Amino acid sequence: MKESWSSLDTFEPNFRPLVVIELAKNTKEETREWLTRRIADKKANGGAQLLVKPLITENGDQNIYLVGASHFRLLLGAETVGLVKECTDNSMRTFTYSSRKTFKDFADDNHSFLTMAESQYIIKHELENLRAKDEKIIPGYPQAKLYPGKSIVRRLLTNGILVQIFPLHDQEELKKLRHTWYGRVKIGYQPLDEIRCYFGETIALYFGFLEYFTFALIPMAVIGIPYYVFAWEDYDKYVMFATFNLLWSTVILEVWKRLCAVMTYRWGTLLMKRQFEEPRPGFHGVLGVNPVTGREEPVYSSIRRQLRIYLVSLPFVCLCLYFSLYVMMIYFDLEQWALDYHKENESNFSSLMLFVPSIIYAIVIEIMNRIYRYAAEFLTSWENHRLESSYQNHLILKVLVFNFLNCFASLFYIAFVLFDMKLLRQSLATLLITSQILNQFAEAFLPYWLQKRHKKRMKKKMYSQKTDTDLSLAEQVSLEKEMGTYFGTFDDYLELFLQFGYVSLFSCVYPLAAVFAVLNNITEIYSDALKMCRVYKRPFAEPTANIGVWQLAFETMSVISVVTNCILIGMSPQVNALFPDSKMDLILTVAFVEHMLLAMKFVMAFVIPDKPRDIQIKLARLEFESLEALKQQ
Amino acid sequence: MKESWSSLDTFEPNFRPLVVIELAKNTKEETREWLTRRIADKKANGGAQLLVKPLITENGDQNIYLVGASHFRLLLGAETVGLVKECTDNSMRTFTYSSRKTFKDFADDNHSFLTMAESQYIIKHELENLRAKDEKIIPGYPQAKLYPGKSIVRRLLTNGILVQIFPLHDQEELKKLRHTWYGRVKIGYQPLDEIRCYFGETIALYFGFLEYFTFALIPMAVIGIPYYVFAWEDYDKYVMFATFNLLWSTVILEVWKRLCAVMTYRWGTLLMKRQFEEPRPGFHGVLGVNPVTGREEPVYSSIRRQLRIYLVSLPFVCLCLYFSLYVMMIYFDLEQWALDYHKENESNFSSLMLFVPSIIYAIVIEIMNRIYRYAAEFLTSWENHRLESSYQNHLILKVLVFNFLNCFASLFYIAFVLFDMKLLRQSLATLLITSQILNQFAEAFLPYWLQKRHKKRMKKKMYSQKTDTDLSLAEQVSLEKEMGTYFGTFDDYLELFLQFGYVSLFSCVYPLAAVFAVLNNITEIYSDALKMCRVYKRPFAEPTANIGVWQLAFETMSVISVVTNCILIGMSPQVNALFPDSKMDLILTVAFVEHMLLAMKFVMAFVIPDKPRDIQIKLARLEFESLEALKQQ
Repeated sequence: MKESWSSLDTFEPNFRPLVVIELAKNTKEETREWLTRRIADKKANGGAQLLVKPLITENGDQNIYLVGASHFRLLLGAETVGLVKECTDNSMRTFTYSSRKTFKDFADDNHSFLTMAESQYIIKHELENLRAKDEKIIPGYPQAKLYPGKSIVRRLLTNGILVQIFPLHDQEELKKLRHTWYGRVKIGYQPLDEIRCYFGETIALYFGFLEYFTFALIPMAVIGIPYYVFAWEDYDKYVMFATFNLLWSTVILEVWKRLCAVMTYRWGTLLMKRQFEEPRPGFHGVLGVNPVTGREEPVYSSIRRQLRIYLVSLPFVCLCLYFSLYVMMIYFDLEQWALDYHKENESNFSSLMLFVPSIIYAIVIEIMNRIYRYAAEFLTSWENHRLESSYQNHLILKVLVFNFLNCFASLFYIAFVLFDMKLLRQSLATLLITSQILNQFAEAFLPYWLQKRHKKRMKKKMYSQKTDTDLSLAEQVSLEKEMGTYFGTFDDYLELFLQFGYVSLFSCVYPLAAVFAVLNNITEIYSDALKMCRVYKRPFAEPTANIGVWQLAFETMSVISVVTNCILIGMSPQVNALFPDSKMDLILTVAFVEHMLLAMKFVMAFVIPDKPRDIQIKLARLEFESLEALKQQ
Repeated sequence: MKESWSSLDTFEPNFRPLVVIELAKNTKEETREWLTRRIADKKANGGAQLLVKPLITENGDQNIYLVGASHFRLLLGAETVGLVKECTDNSMRTFTYSSRKTFKDFADDNHSFLTMAESQYIIKHELENLRAKDEKIIPGYPQAKLYPGKSIVRRLLTNGILVQIFPLHDQEELKKLRHTWYGRVKIGYQPLDEIRCYFGETIALYFGFLEYFTFALIPMAVIGIPYYVFAWEDYDKYVMFATFNLLWSTVILEVWKRLCAVMTYRWGTLLMKRQFEEPRPGFHGVLGVNPVTGREEPVYSSIRRQLRIYLVSLPFVCLCLYFSLYVMMIYFDLEQWALDYHKENESNFSSLMLFVPSIIYAIVIEIMNRIYRYAAEFLTSWENHRLESSYQNHLILKVLVFNFLNCFASLFYIAFVLFDMKLLRQSLATLLITSQILNQFAEAFLPYWLQKRHKKRMKKKMYSQKTDTDLSLAEQVSLEKEMGTYFGTFDDYLELFLQFGYVSLFSCVYPLAAVFAVLNNITEIYSDALKMCRVYKRPFAEPTANIGVWQLAFETMSVISVVTNCILIGMSPQVNALFPDSKMDLILTVAFVEHMLLAMKFVMAFVIPDKPRDIQIKLARLEFESLEALKQQ
């Protein structure tokens, strides 16, 4: 291996730019030189051994660099990041350079063995793992301290010298993808494998989940329609619908795990070994020795972090929740007041006043959501998590709880305090439909329109009216670097999560919710696809084996929905009429049924295996082979 | 490595017998010869390369063989089974022969580097992995078919040619262990590390759990005593006790996981890689190709097994449960009838008749339990599980559900149908105390007494009155081979599980239960220790990292106990008095509190990490090192 590393030259005739590095405008010459030298330097000298070229734009600025790598370098990188690829015998194996001949579609001159997204992921990984050796500071910036082993790119980012790193689009590939994805009207599945090749596993998995979830909602929607059409109000029909709904939601979440395993096995991420996680850029602490790696790095005591979480963040979140409830109560008071006012002096003005509380509440909620989001981000980064994953989990948890309360508190209040089923149905419909319309508008069409306008202006400035594919590289880069950054699938999953809440929490009151959800999701697929392809910068591919914490969130929601639906059914007048003498018997029956349903859910979750049998066998075979290999050694 | 194997000679001057093989009395000469040759044969020739010596008893029978191994052979075996040992730098690592010098206490002449239990485990593993090569049958037994790769020992066992394989006791070690364990009256912990060295991890873990559980019950017992002494009947005190109990039981189960991780890390089993599991001896099927290993072995379709489980076993278990409930109802009818009879004709005979139903019920329950146990074993082996572990899990589940119902159904009936708290407390006390006394008697003292009588008779027969330690090897073997076989920790855990049920399910009615449980467990430790050391044959050590399915069983019990305790508190007259007007409010409050408690349990189980931080760091370090090693490769 050693020999092959040294034989690898940084000069390659057909340089293909993959990743763009944008430095701050006023970056010192000395720093530029040092950075490009470190990126291009040989592995043996502690460099990344990548190809790097400055991009000269028309205004002469030299703050943008294009990074690429030779095919051979990428293959070695694929081994480093532990990519899993399909072999000629159809099994999935971790790629190593020495066993490269056993992999499907491998040929020394086949440069498409690694997809562009994979190549870009490898380059990102190599750049992030470019570490300081004996440098004490970043040349030219004495205040930007370095220590041996510190990631150079991360220090440059935190010091603002590096503005951004992003992967380039491939206009041709993107055009093809756009065409198969949403370019034509068709009934059929999304091209998930193509999406995965272009955008990576995390995004493909989101679209896979969105599609699966939409299909899974169709039975609920189909069963829900007659309730609306025939205006069914019989309790037994509602009970049947709710029971079906509860068991169905358990089944779909379990089946998703299996489908997800099938997909990620095919993509190789199911088998990919978790890499050792480096500290996140924002992590700070006293320089010490990491007990796991033995390396020098900032260390922050876990107890202090726990104290921050439990003594500051937790009370703060509780306070916010309380405040949110308090605002809701004021809203209901205002509503009542407006109603009373309208009754007393019936006039045009008073009927207009009826809408005022709702509008104020909607605005206040939106403001609270935004402030809270900032607060949550601030608090979570103040908690000083060492790993990006644990930072993400804590942030998601905080935002999830608050959003859950904000969205559903008023519905809970209407249902279980006011006992007003008519109002509940009405509010549910209003909330669901308006939130869906607003979301789609704010999420995709508005940015798309802004983007389009911006692009036109840019093109005018460049005095050219070429189509996308004919753009020169410099033009493409300067267009893409101005595009918005896609901050991950969080908001998209959150939207789906809240939708799942609308559909399942009160399903027995408003069976039509599933129909709206299905309709929304079909357009959501298109608007999200548009967003990914047209509005945002291309995001780096992120290998992942499942939807992570969202699986847990959806499962929790489905447990809560058992409780709410049982209470709703117990409150319905038809069920009440069945127990004319004793409310006690009614409540006991409802409680009993609820416990049985919960027990059934847990048994079902336990009995349905998380991976299909053939995947289990394939995984067992790999494990067996590695055990045998160990014995042979 | 190849060279070292061949340099290994089966002749060793100081042969130390470790394991005994007992063949059937009438085994053919030809078979004996073939078997001993295969055991002693070189690894390269497909043998086990162990030392084997016939034991000539005084009556001249030659059906007992002693198996041992050279120190070098045992070290190679330790590598094969993947033993994890402590290194000189205090980290735990998988033992390999080539890295032997880095391990603590290793020296080429230190024969106690491997404990005797470990050596016996290695020999058992090697014997069980002695596989047929080109033999089509067992020589001398044309009906006992073999195929390449079939375990010879397992075929011999299923054909009755091999009677038993068991490890020998070490009288000296045993005496020392007995002394520190239960030989002197002392307050203190059990010598778990010594127990582990002598009996292996599974048994040490059981005793560790028993001890931990006893300590964990002490707070409950201490709080429970004043309730009895001062005859407290206030609802608030009961509510407090029950709440404490519920949260406490969650905490102790979570903390156990952490303690268990600490122990098994020290013992090396936490890090031990799961070996590939071979089919269990009773597994049968059409000869096919195992999709995982690619080896020829019996194959049985998973769908047919599922059908057997869901279409036969499940209905059968349900029928048994129904039957058990039916018998219970007859018992309550009989009880009522006896009470009426006694009221009508008060006489000595009639007051005697009062006891008849209980006695009949107790006998019937015992009979049912036994019959059911046989049926469960028959059904589970008919289900034809490929792996021993999956066989065990299905058996445990079946037996657990039935025992749970048998023990607690009458209590549930008294509590939630008859609403008779006095009777509940009385029945609970009777059941708990009698079952504990009976258990300890039947489990340890009776077999011990029988064993002692048998030993005396044996010794008389040998015309010698020596003490245990002076016995000759032949005498020791002939004594030990007649001892009972310890069938694993199942029954011991089951007893603890039912005890946990008595303590937690109705804790708010009978706070004294914990006191009896603590008292019982203290003697239980001694009687179980006596049972292990004196009554049974030494069992093979079995490496294990946790208490497996029992953790789940105990957790499920603690969830059920939240429900029962909430109902009991809701039913108490004091709580009822708080809601004089509306039973509905009462039930709603109880249901709300119950849901909150359940939610709290789940959150606690989620928040408390399963492994202490230092163990997490140690595991992370090992993972990091192996990743680094992979990169270096």
